[in-house]
Amino acid sequence: MKIGIIGGTGDIGEGMALRLSPRYDVIVGSREETRAIAACDLCREALHEQGLECNLLGGTNQRAIDESEIVILAIPFEHVAPTLEVLTGFENKIVVSPVNPIKRATYFYYAPPPEGSAAMMIKGMLPSSAIVCAAFNTIAAGRWKVLDEELDYSVAVCCDDDEVRQTVMDLVDAVSNLRAYDAGPLAAASVVESVTPLLLNIARFNRMRDVGIKFV
Amino acid sequence: MKIGIIGGTGDIGEGMALRLSPRYDVIVGSREETRAIAACDLCREALHEQGLECNLLGGTNQRAIDESEIVILAIPFEHVAPTLEVLTGFENKIVVSPVNPIKRATYFYYAPPPEGSAAMMIKGMLPSSAIVCAAFNTIAAGRWKVLDEELDYSVAVCCDDDEVRQTVMDLVDAVSNLRAYDAGPLAAASVVESVTPLLLNIARFNRMRDVGIKFV
Repeated sequence: MKIGIIGGTGDIGEGMALRLSPRYDVIVGSREETRAIAACDLCREALHEQGLECNLLGGTNQRAIDESEIVILAIPFEHVAPTLEVLTGFENKIVVSPVNPIKRATYFYYAPPPEGSAAMMIKGMLPSSAIVCAAFNTIAAGRWKVLDEELDYSVAVCCDDDEVRQTVMDLVDAVSNLRAYDAGPLAAASVVESVTPLLLNIARFNRMRDVGIKFV
Repeated sequence: MKIGIIGGTGDIGEGMALRLSPRYDVIVGSREETRAIAACDLCREALHEQGLECNLLGGTNQRAIDESEIVILAIPFEHVAPTLEVLTGFENKIVVSPVNPIKRATYFYYAPPPEGSAAMMIKGMLPSSAIVCAAFNTIAAGRWKVLDEELDYSVAVCCDDDEVRQTVMDLVDAVSNLRAYDAGPLAAASVVESVTPLLLNIARFNRMRDVGIKFV
């Protein structure tokens, strides 16, 4: 199964590439192909240092879509609309959204678009044959990259298609110690996305770093 | 320190009385005094069976306010406005809101009032000298009552007053294995309250019961 990461040279995208490429064929996408290739070289080095083989390829965001079955949108909420506007070929793809619309005052808060959540907005921007799935929303960027530490978190997965949800839950379960939970239809993604500003507040007000959650 | 529980004969209220009364003086409030007294008798029995002494008193909701420093609103969101309208004497009290405005479709979702959260709505309904604090929002009713099981969860606490927040965090930390975290000002309570519909969805779609969270 091939996984394309849009925004693969960003913080979360790079970490995802590191964690996923030992198990899956991963195409790291970027607006600039040269940056994607450079990021892949660094990832490959980091993985080899850990004694891990990987299957990583750098390319444009468009190529990451065209050559993958699963496309992960590893981009900040503000970049979603302009990024999706210039890309095509999402037909029949599984599109994973770890995107959280968050704003900051003296604290972080959830600031969803009119569609109710980033996931629902993304669904509205893509062709109807693309199946959107919210996942990986609550894992801090800083944790993805630290390869010698396990990711020991719960991951809520929202999707309207049972088969696709299971595919993405299997993907989640294949990463480190992550554990996937079915969190219902895509319309329920808002209560998943809004956990992230809470975790940022917990980190901020308790002087912690990269706080995650476990369902217990 | 005396704690009054408004709605103390409800599911969560009764569980809270059981967990708090071995350590604090607790007044269990109800619209009907006789129900509060009956509930206290049952609680006392359950605690004695566990070899625990307690300090429990049943009374009206109004008495639970009048004789306490901390008032816990253990009532469903729908009952908050009609309940608060007939009660007085909140001046200078610490008011704890574990209230979550939730609605249900084929899944649970967060349905806050125009004020942004139940906590902010409650603040707006009380005299300005009352200090509202969101806490205990994410602990399932079913868990409160099972006295021979520890409550091993994280609890996010929102408050605009540092001293009051610390008082409530100490209260949280005194219950079983609960661990309190500062989650920022009261305006940040929406992202705490909205965790509860997520936990209900996780329980529902994964056939689990009484799901809670830990920050890790």
